[in-house]
Amino acid sequence: MAKASSSNLRIDGARLWSSLMRSAEIGPGKAGGLCRLAASDADKEMRDLYRGWCEAADLSVTVDRLGNMFARRPGKRDDLPPVTMGSHLDTQYAGGRFDGILGVLSGLEVVRTLNDAGIETVRPIEVINWTNEEGCRFAPPMASAGAFAGVYTEGFVATRSDDDGLLQGEELERIGYRGSAPVGGRRLDAYFELHIEQGPILDAEGIPVGIVTGGYKSFGAHVDVRGETAHAGPTPMEKRRDALVGAARVVTAVNDIGWKHADSLGKTTVTRLVAWPNKPGIISEWAQFSLDCRHPDPDTAQEMWAEIEAAIPAAAEKANVEMEITTRWEFGNERFDPDLIALLRAAAGDLGVATRDLLSQAGHDAYHISKCAPTAMIFSPCIGGITHNEAEDIDLKMTEPAVNVLMHAVLARANRPA
Amino acid sequence: MAKASSSNLRIDGARLWSSLMRSAEIGPGKAGGLCRLAASDADKEMRDLYRGWCEAADLSVTVDRLGNMFARRPGKRDDLPPVTMGSHLDTQYAGGRFDGILGVLSGLEVVRTLNDAGIETVRPIEVINWTNEEGCRFAPPMASAGAFAGVYTEGFVATRSDDDGLLQGEELERIGYRGSAPVGGRRLDAYFELHIEQGPILDAEGIPVGIVTGGYKSFGAHVDVRGETAHAGPTPMEKRRDALVGAARVVTAVNDIGWKHADSLGKTTVTRLVAWPNKPGIISEWAQFSLDCRHPDPDTAQEMWAEIEAAIPAAAEKANVEMEITTRWEFGNERFDPDLIALLRAAAGDLGVATRDLLSQAGHDAYHISKCAPTAMIFSPCIGGITHNEAEDIDLKMTEPAVNVLMHAVLARANRPA
Repeated sequence: MAKASSSNLRIDGARLWSSLMRSAEIGPGKAGGLCRLAASDADKEMRDLYRGWCEAADLSVTVDRLGNMFARRPGKRDDLPPVTMGSHLDTQYAGGRFDGILGVLSGLEVVRTLNDAGIETVRPIEVINWTNEEGCRFAPPMASAGAFAGVYTEGFVATRSDDDGLLQGEELERIGYRGSAPVGGRRLDAYFELHIEQGPILDAEGIPVGIVTGGYKSFGAHVDVRGETAHAGPTPMEKRRDALVGAARVVTAVNDIGWKHADSLGKTTVTRLVAWPNKPGIISEWAQFSLDCRHPDPDTAQEMWAEIEAAIPAAAEKANVEMEITTRWEFGNERFDPDLIALLRAAAGDLGVATRDLLSQAGHDAYHISKCAPTAMIFSPCIGGITHNEAEDIDLKMTEPAVNVLMHAVLARANRPA
Repeated sequence: MAKASSSNLRIDGARLWSSLMRSAEIGPGKAGGLCRLAASDADKEMRDLYRGWCEAADLSVTVDRLGNMFARRPGKRDDLPPVTMGSHLDTQYAGGRFDGILGVLSGLEVVRTLNDAGIETVRPIEVINWTNEEGCRFAPPMASAGAFAGVYTEGFVATRSDDDGLLQGEELERIGYRGSAPVGGRRLDAYFELHIEQGPILDAEGIPVGIVTGGYKSFGAHVDVRGETAHAGPTPMEKRRDALVGAARVVTAVNDIGWKHADSLGKTTVTRLVAWPNKPGIISEWAQFSLDCRHPDPDTAQEMWAEIEAAIPAAAEKANVEMEITTRWEFGNERFDPDLIALLRAAAGDLGVATRDLLSQAGHDAYHISKCAPTAMIFSPCIGGITHNEAEDIDLKMTEPAVNVLMHAVLARANRPA
């Protein structure tokens, strides 16, 4: 009987949508989306609301020293490591209403559904909200999940600064979310992350569930440029050491490299270019920017990266400036767990939901967590693939199947024999 | 007797230097230069000091509605239009201690010298400090002198905004320098501006005085770029509308155009490039920058400008963004007054000072004033041609001759028959 009722179990799409739409009121952007930066007042308001929802669902909420929130539903064997679901409630500067948020609120919806059905699980279940996944206020992105996984220290992440010089740890303290729990140091039985695809494939093909089998290989770096200030008028071209020209030549070259590999789905981007003094009438002496390249094939990604690494000194020479890569990162080698992927496929099969395999093109908290726990990701469609844009949107009917797949995979994992 | 004593008259170099060095303490930069932006607290401090110096020299100080300061020494025929000298006390963001400042404090030194010698003149003499010549806080540059000359309205100039949204007129009010005198509307008999060359020629050739016969022809514009925000990861190259890429392609193309004409002394610059949201992980939807080109030959300058105007839509197409020129300007057609130039040459001849003719490569308040009054400029050397840089420097011994030439030209003009 319990088995039959469990297999008929479905989440409440209207309740999930209601939670999403309530979230969409907090930290409004300029054009219907959200600007809910990590550790901002809006983030606090959303966290408070979410904590209240969790407590109303009988979850006990723990906050760690980096603001990561763990909402726990006890298991019959509460001594066993928890099966977890999560994502992030922070958004980009001009972000959408679903990126990250869908993963957290789907986790909550799963728990609410289990509660309504009176279903107990062997293992505890936790819903996680990771701090500052976006990294648009405090770089690097995904660093709080990274610290949980041991990739970064708590101290490093807490001392990242925003453009106004405010530290992430102090800002978390200010909004009341610098918790007392240690960061990481405990086992998760499994981590599932449901996320909008942030790409056009599922929407175009009308498939509601993407099983994420891996990530695009991605390389990135921060670059500093040092030139010299001079008057924009009289200084001869050959005497100039224009940091902005150096930076712009890298942007152009990196964009050309992206186009060269565009047919095989390669991409390159330069973001957050700042220069100083960056005023009319004067040549800038300093500039800084971030760049990255991504490709589904790791070897091609490596080749693109080598092209970028050659373009940087070429641009520096042309502009007569010095350039230095100050930070490097790469991701996309992560492997998601075959057992969890099998559970997702089985749940989709039982539910009669069409799926396809996908590579993730963006970074996600799951990338880091895969280093410390069995991890898998499910994608659901976003309309037109539009994301990191206030126009980001989803169709609830095309989203519910993924949440149900998530729920049944979590149930199966949480109830497997101890 | 008066004539003999007048021809032996020399300014007090040590006193001028002392004033320059006192000025160099107000609004210090990071590297020995100045950051004394228009209508800032530092500008107020300098203006207060300068006003005190003027009053101590028996000058009556009038401030107009745009903060332009006129320090007047009466003439025997005080009803006649004044012979004026001036420049500006504001600096670039990372500016030097002499750009502009030398012209104002040399004017004061000339008056002090005339006072010490008890010399009266037929016409009144005024020393002028023009507001915000640099334009690095409120664009466009030279606009307060421009308003005096009728090129801009007072209202336009007063409502220019800085990067924090503060208005120039309100900021002048705040520091107590939004005066009551109307802007312009009165005749100047002559305007002389002494300025450092802002180029390397006088220093390299060891010549202390440059007679400015005209300006490099210069065209400039502000450009707005409109694209679309999207995630830096999954968005395919062909779907991107990256405003930063569009802007960077213009920077690169404009720099190439400068290099193409570098042998004939052509120059191009892009300054103050800003993008939004300009955050990690997201493609910017908006960018804005300023650009200009300059060439000693007006036809070649026009040709360079045509190349730039072709490069803008080409970059826009390549980046799949829209670009619009929102403001245009040009200068360098100004003609300096032959009579005043002859006076400068005569004074230099009498003093045995070597001169050479020069074209100005930068814009100056004198460009605008030449539209409403007979105007001439004298350049003095700056070491290595370094300017708009905190390392800007001069050699007093190579500067004094220009101040003496200025004084004798002003004296001759002020004493010519009414």
